[in-house]
Amino acid sequence: MKFFDQKDLASLDHLYRINLINSSSGFKSANLIATKSKEGVANVAVFSSVIHLGSDPPLLGFLTRPTTVPRNTYKNIKETGCYTINHIYEDIIKDAHHCSAKYDASISEFSMTGLKEEYDHTCMVPFVKGAPVQLQMKFREEHHFKINGTIMIIGEIIEIYIKEELLKDDGFIDLSEGQITAINGLDGYTIPKLKTRLPYQRPKKSSLSKVQFDGIES
Amino acid sequence: MKFFDQKDLASLDHLYRINLINSSSGFKSANLIATKSKEGVANVAVFSSVIHLGSDPPLLGFLTRPTTVPRNTYKNIKETGCYTINHIYEDIIKDAHHCSAKYDASISEFSMTGLKEEYDHTCMVPFVKGAPVQLQMKFREEHHFKINGTIMIIGEIIEIYIKEELLKDDGFIDLSEGQITAINGLDGYTIPKLKTRLPYQRPKKSSLSKVQFDGIES
Repeated sequence: MKFFDQKDLASLDHLYRINLINSSSGFKSANLIATKSKEGVANVAVFSSVIHLGSDPPLLGFLTRPTTVPRNTYKNIKETGCYTINHIYEDIIKDAHHCSAKYDASISEFSMTGLKEEYDHTCMVPFVKGAPVQLQMKFREEHHFKINGTIMIIGEIIEIYIKEELLKDDGFIDLSEGQITAINGLDGYTIPKLKTRLPYQRPKKSSLSKVQFDGIES
Repeated sequence: MKFFDQKDLASLDHLYRINLINSSSGFKSANLIATKSKEGVANVAVFSSVIHLGSDPPLLGFLTRPTTVPRNTYKNIKETGCYTINHIYEDIIKDAHHCSAKYDASISEFSMTGLKEEYDHTCMVPFVKGAPVQLQMKFREEHHFKINGTIMIIGEIIEIYIKEELLKDDGFIDLSEGQITAINGLDGYTIPKLKTRLPYQRPKKSSLSKVQFDGIES
């Protein structure tokens, strides 16, 4: 095994360290978050930090960096209260990744890539056309993490669109049937295939366990 | 497209909703978090919420549920300040998933599964033997999200062990070479294969963009 201690980590070259630490948490979700400024300019950015927070109410969070430099996504969400989350899938990986380029707020990434806007009647913020899962979100809370200034944005799911064939009888969305991607580190893209679904687990009888709650944390 | 609005979501059957909402964020990291109580009982639980927070200092977060019922992982981390994060890989999926069963705090999941403890000299908390990526973590901050009582635990990476062949020259960890899993929803397991790494993106020249920061958020 290759080993790094705290001192090794502190002395690494900057780019080496961001590749290493960004890969160290495991595979990450791959989403395009779309917003619109109050001037009406659409913005779409790639995020690998969207995370499930709870099902009732249905809440997702994502991370944004410190606001010491302009952040179009954060500013637009704070101005309008709404955003959409759109799953990145195989056909749009290159265009989605290009959304990580640092464009000025006056320029919509939709105009610089093959990505297309799609609207429904309830929302002024676009979805990304063709995304197999599209979520309309309402901003609920933000938390500033003192330790490095990162901000977690928490939103409630207001609407979900899912490609019919992905949705199973028990509510499970088979992401692999939509060729949805998972990200490895900063720049690695995968198209996972579902291998198995495992049943709900109960303690083995030999444990003489009392019923307690620990374990499934998702 | 199948469509759910806020009213539809609120009226769904409980199990259908947790399957749907848990799948809606995209693929998730798959980790075993190991801890030890002050009485010396090892605990290991499966988590799909480990997330990258920053590289300098190297920080990861994960979510735990409300503390209205006992939570061995949370209690142990608060008592001892340390824990390990171990990537779930193909050979241990079934044992890892069994760690979601609700065992009493007096019973170590290591004793109820094929998972083996592994220690190094700097830490009283075990790693999961054989995991291709093993992280020793020090507790740094916790944040309680008012909206649903979820807690984010933030820890600093103190040590990393990585299987040699996964680590590339630029610090990238190729998770797929370790047969590391990604989770879909509550119970779907995948073994993603790396498809491509894409280069760092700059604005296209036609945009006349000023340099600003937006986009790569990971």
